[in-house]
Amino acid sequence: MSENFKAPNTHGCYSDLETDMERKTVSIVGSGNWGSAIAKILGKNVVERKEKFNPEVKMYMYEEMIDGRKLTEIVNTEHENIKYLPGIKLPENVVAVPDLLEATREADILVFVLPHQYVHKICSTLKNNIKQGTVAVSLIKGFSIHEDGVIIPMSKVIGEDLGIPCAALSGANLATEVAQEQFCESTIGCEDDQMGQLLKELFETPYFRVAVVSDRQTVEACGALKNIVGIGAGIVDGLGFGDNTKAAVIRLGLMEMIKATEMFIPEMKVTTFFESCGIADLVTTCHGGRNRLLGESVIKSDKTIKQLEKELMKGQSFQGPLIAREIYTMLEKKNMTDKFPLFTAIHKICIREMDPKEFISCLRNHPEHL
Amino acid sequence: MSENFKAPNTHGCYSDLETDMERKTVSIVGSGNWGSAIAKILGKNVVERKEKFNPEVKMYMYEEMIDGRKLTEIVNTEHENIKYLPGIKLPENVVAVPDLLEATREADILVFVLPHQYVHKICSTLKNNIKQGTVAVSLIKGFSIHEDGVIIPMSKVIGEDLGIPCAALSGANLATEVAQEQFCESTIGCEDDQMGQLLKELFETPYFRVAVVSDRQTVEACGALKNIVGIGAGIVDGLGFGDNTKAAVIRLGLMEMIKATEMFIPEMKVTTFFESCGIADLVTTCHGGRNRLLGESVIKSDKTIKQLEKELMKGQSFQGPLIAREIYTMLEKKNMTDKFPLFTAIHKICIREMDPKEFISCLRNHPEHL
Repeated sequence: MSENFKAPNTHGCYSDLETDMERKTVSIVGSGNWGSAIAKILGKNVVERKEKFNPEVKMYMYEEMIDGRKLTEIVNTEHENIKYLPGIKLPENVVAVPDLLEATREADILVFVLPHQYVHKICSTLKNNIKQGTVAVSLIKGFSIHEDGVIIPMSKVIGEDLGIPCAALSGANLATEVAQEQFCESTIGCEDDQMGQLLKELFETPYFRVAVVSDRQTVEACGALKNIVGIGAGIVDGLGFGDNTKAAVIRLGLMEMIKATEMFIPEMKVTTFFESCGIADLVTTCHGGRNRLLGESVIKSDKTIKQLEKELMKGQSFQGPLIAREIYTMLEKKNMTDKFPLFTAIHKICIREMDPKEFISCLRNHPEHL
Repeated sequence: MSENFKAPNTHGCYSDLETDMERKTVSIVGSGNWGSAIAKILGKNVVERKEKFNPEVKMYMYEEMIDGRKLTEIVNTEHENIKYLPGIKLPENVVAVPDLLEATREADILVFVLPHQYVHKICSTLKNNIKQGTVAVSLIKGFSIHEDGVIIPMSKVIGEDLGIPCAALSGANLATEVAQEQFCESTIGCEDDQMGQLLKELFETPYFRVAVVSDRQTVEACGALKNIVGIGAGIVDGLGFGDNTKAAVIRLGLMEMIKATEMFIPEMKVTTFFESCGIADLVTTCHGGRNRLLGESVIKSDKTIKQLEKELMKGQSFQGPLIAREIYTMLEKKNMTDKFPLFTAIHKICIREMDPKEFISCLRNHPEHL
């Protein structure tokens, strides 16, 4: 942290210096819709909590040309990410940097918020180029799927790739609403108490309230598994059912989420499902998320998921069908698909092996009703 | 049960008789929207499970004249409750009876499903006029509030008034959707295992799935407390906030529901909140219920609750403001309002002591975020 050292002030007092030695430098890796919304929060917080954080936040931005101008230049002069978060002013101390290493060289805290498919590549560039003692937090929606079908949370990928501790932040946090400062909650999963509290101070604002739990893996499991249930909610909408049925799908989905998490993470705490990353994010996903839209579209057309991704997601992947497939594969190996009729039915509907109209029949004899 | 005895059949076999002695006669007390939807289920189930139940279900119906005809006569000839559940055929073995004692005299199981304000009067008529060994189950939405402000679940009122065991059934069960046979779930709270299983057999169908828990008081606490949170969801809708904020209100509301239940029912089980009577009913209430509508209306006008009840409920009471007031009174006595900022704010908004625009501010420093 030598670059932050200050000379003692004229009274010979070292308190500034001492404080300064503790100040953390924050860098953001990623600058899309969610990354920019978070940059707005972090930029403001580091200034307000200047005893804890250095006042400049570098934000790594993949360079793009917008009408002949560099996007980083636009962000650094107009303080607005006109491509990914138009209409929202960013604090002037958030500086877009097109060079990854320059953006992260001084960082004590790396905030990862970029599409999951780029993480490995970014980490291989960062490795051996970060300061000692640097920690990370992953805000990445999604997960990595190993060749052998194991689902790996992104905080683990980052932590292992860089050999540093990595926490996870997840919650009912639609980026645009966060950028508009609409009140919401979020959850940080972090095994280390002190690091968790530091991250809470970095992220929390009066409109973005953060709870810290130690159960990091469950925080991320919720974020992955909710996408399967979201498809189920969309199927129910598409079939024209009302609030009762949707509530039943949300509840049965939650019970399967808990059971699956127990299987894969024996030390998980069921109370984590009561946090924003749990039921709150699930409710939001089942009422407004992309996977809900997919479920509805699966009913209203007989197109494949691939075709629907092209039409609805500009070719990006829906997370729900991917995670449904991996969970199904694991359940089948363990001969446990009958304990997860909702997850199983959603997978089979996604691969068009089951008529979506049969979805409800699969829930009638759910183990929860025995 | 002597009136159910049959002579032995021509083979001298008493198996019918023996079975018959165990058969239970079911009566429904009440015949409104929810009562009629349940009558459809019970009428079908008693015939399908004839080894357990006698095939006629008497339904007590307060007599009304509809275009010069008695409503009981219409139900018994056209098998449709044209006033409270039009368009839905009832099984022919459901018989509407305008005399309360005639309707209930033979009952082994009394199903209470009438507006809560009539319960005391009905019970005082029934007392000493029911068979020995009769049990009851309450499907009544609402609760009784004692003069000293204690909130009493309806199953307790019925159980104590009649001196018999009384279970409770509650869940995400909008009557019209149940009558249309849309898939849903429900929860029976019953201290006695055997009675709980019998009730499950009475109520469960392929589209109405029932889970039984022993934690009856929590089942009913959920049904009461969710109405407060529903108002909060409506306020958020009225203020124009999005899905993040609504999810936060639902989650914080759930946490206050759990904490309040722990205070009043120390033996409660938190897992009951994962049942249909818990989160499922809460989600439904916060997206489509009457109290949600009230919350929205409180934002959009400056009318009192009384005026809004006149306009929106034909003078009937909203449950949410009543329960909010009682909970607030109790919390104030215990000096604990600061632990329940959501419940407290909703009460103060309902009595127009707080500007509903201040609602979100009250949630910013929720104890859940400490």
